[in-house]
Amino acid sequence: MFTYEIAPVFILMEHQVLKKMRDIIGFTNGDSILCPGGAISNLYAVIVARHKLFPEYKTKGLKALPQLVLFTSEHSHYSTKSSGSVCGFGTDNVIEVACDDKGRMIPTELERLVKESVTRGCTPFFVNCTCGTTVLGAFDQINPIADICDKYNLWLHIDAAWGGGCLLSRKHRHKLNGITRASSVTWNPHKLMSALLQCSTVHFKEDGLLLDANQMCADYLFQQDKHYDVSYDTGDKVIQCGRHNDIFKLWLMWRSKGTEGYEQHIDHLFDMTEYMVSKLKERSDRYYLIVPEPECVNISFWYVPTRLRNMPHNKQKEQELGRITPILKGRMMNEGTLMIGYQPVGDIPNFFRNIISNPGVQTKDIDHLLDTLDRLGHDL
Amino acid sequence: MFTYEIAPVFILMEHQVLKKMRDIIGFTNGDSILCPGGAISNLYAVIVARHKLFPEYKTKGLKALPQLVLFTSEHSHYSTKSSGSVCGFGTDNVIEVACDDKGRMIPTELERLVKESVTRGCTPFFVNCTCGTTVLGAFDQINPIADICDKYNLWLHIDAAWGGGCLLSRKHRHKLNGITRASSVTWNPHKLMSALLQCSTVHFKEDGLLLDANQMCADYLFQQDKHYDVSYDTGDKVIQCGRHNDIFKLWLMWRSKGTEGYEQHIDHLFDMTEYMVSKLKERSDRYYLIVPEPECVNISFWYVPTRLRNMPHNKQKEQELGRITPILKGRMMNEGTLMIGYQPVGDIPNFFRNIISNPGVQTKDIDHLLDTLDRLGHDL
Repeated sequence: MFTYEIAPVFILMEHQVLKKMRDIIGFTNGDSILCPGGAISNLYAVIVARHKLFPEYKTKGLKALPQLVLFTSEHSHYSTKSSGSVCGFGTDNVIEVACDDKGRMIPTELERLVKESVTRGCTPFFVNCTCGTTVLGAFDQINPIADICDKYNLWLHIDAAWGGGCLLSRKHRHKLNGITRASSVTWNPHKLMSALLQCSTVHFKEDGLLLDANQMCADYLFQQDKHYDVSYDTGDKVIQCGRHNDIFKLWLMWRSKGTEGYEQHIDHLFDMTEYMVSKLKERSDRYYLIVPEPECVNISFWYVPTRLRNMPHNKQKEQELGRITPILKGRMMNEGTLMIGYQPVGDIPNFFRNIISNPGVQTKDIDHLLDTLDRLGHDL
Repeated sequence: MFTYEIAPVFILMEHQVLKKMRDIIGFTNGDSILCPGGAISNLYAVIVARHKLFPEYKTKGLKALPQLVLFTSEHSHYSTKSSGSVCGFGTDNVIEVACDDKGRMIPTELERLVKESVTRGCTPFFVNCTCGTTVLGAFDQINPIADICDKYNLWLHIDAAWGGGCLLSRKHRHKLNGITRASSVTWNPHKLMSALLQCSTVHFKEDGLLLDANQMCADYLFQQDKHYDVSYDTGDKVIQCGRHNDIFKLWLMWRSKGTEGYEQHIDHLFDMTEYMVSKLKERSDRYYLIVPEPECVNISFWYVPTRLRNMPHNKQKEQELGRITPILKGRMMNEGTLMIGYQPVGDIPNFFRNIISNPGVQTKDIDHLLDTLDRLGHDL
């Protein structure tokens, strides 16, 4: 789909649903598009920000500009770095900002690095603020980051691919306080909102930028002399040509649940997370929580087999737990019972990251999960 | 899907089908990926070519390089220009090469422009050669273009998004003679092969480049310490993160038709095109063919209403035919009977471009199409 002509119903669905999402974010005007995944949504944000601040890049290229630099937290999704590579800035110019012990970008560190980049003769222009990091599910604090963006005239992008669904819940929305201060927002309904892969959106506060940044005026495809209002056409706003119809499933889900139903859906995911965390704390001999109070539905923990239960928790024990994690994962996969991701973060060795994003999950499933881990792993 | 772990069956299907496509192209080794559309496939080719020839761009960015320039024909898809913008080269550095009267890139013009860019102090690095242009369905001649690429050490990309399906037909494959000389090939099964949108592939002759160019080593997602062979994982090769499962429908179609069935499918589309062209020639008072012998299944023509039939064909008549085309299209859409695209090309005013890509089309449908055009347009 790329024009009203080709897909009239779906183009109107896109307009409607994306406008509703912008309303929920708090963007009163603006423009949005569905993308093939959050990484491409974030790429769009970089492209549009570059065009807004340095419109000459589109025709002249980066040789005509100062060295632009981007900022993102060390816990952010790798797509900001990837965008830096794709767009020709170079990954050296995507600067990672340190995080606090909850996994949130440290604003004073951001400001220090922005100043430092200016001293080096570079031009900072883009800050990616993550709301719901991939591993720990941390929410960067938007307001202090937005203050820095205001001060240095930087584009503020919120990567809420993961945490965006919280906007639908009165109870959890506060985690994104300040989101209206952003210039762009990534929000993936294929995550907390349970749409099937792929269903990713990116939203811009200012209307017209998406078209200005991407249009190639390919009139042989996007004719301007049609007998209907061509402002409905999306073809010239995007770096794809034809796009997959990802809106239908979301529109259908939203119609079926209603916005209140979606609020219950999100709240249920967080309730189940809370339940699982409480169970892990009850069995603290067997499970070690890396983040004791998760902000999102990511639960980061180690399983502790029998032989290690009486050992004091120290770096050496962490190494051993990290060694056990992939073996236990292998046992799960071989048996075909469970699928839980694991990974290291910084100097923390491999740990499990349980994600509750399926609204069908009930307390009995969580009990089953913990029992199974114990059954498969106790002798490790 | 991005790992064997997440989607084991589909990852293996991708490996199998993409390998078969590379075999058909004539790449004995190499690597491929499914993309969200041909524009992104072409973007991948630009990214990988840049990385192969100038690996330092990935970390240092374009400021560290000479001004790179790309070449593509004036009739090519706008995605090469768009890639030039996205990647930071600037659209001024995507140079359009003139075409002959069949819509094919003129090789001597290409060589002249390559030399000229060197004289200006630029570094040519990429040539996009289109096999099946969007509007006229022209096939750039690969061999003379490949000779120039060899001479000046340029990456040869074949954009066979549209014409790639001809590779499956012994009768039509010759249109892509020389394709094995390319370094990369875009081929969209969602076009001539009738897979549903989206199903687009890009193929590289050299293995390892796709990974080298795109990997961000995000070990928190693409763990290297799994209990299976992680070389099956695709996540770190791509600029998307999770990808839509587009392979299943293609695998299923191919299993159901067989490669011979696909050959008949392609041959049928061309037979129907030939039938329609012959009918247009029979009714040459009513239909004016812009390309009398189309190379692909694109049929470019004007409808000539009664009042213009005795007027000699000249520029003034073409203007009038161009004026009529969108009105007739509006009548079709209002009645809901037909959908045929139209557009101008260069100084040729708006004309219809009929595409036969549905294997269900039979001669009676073509007769109906021509009768309907006549019924709706004769009084214009």
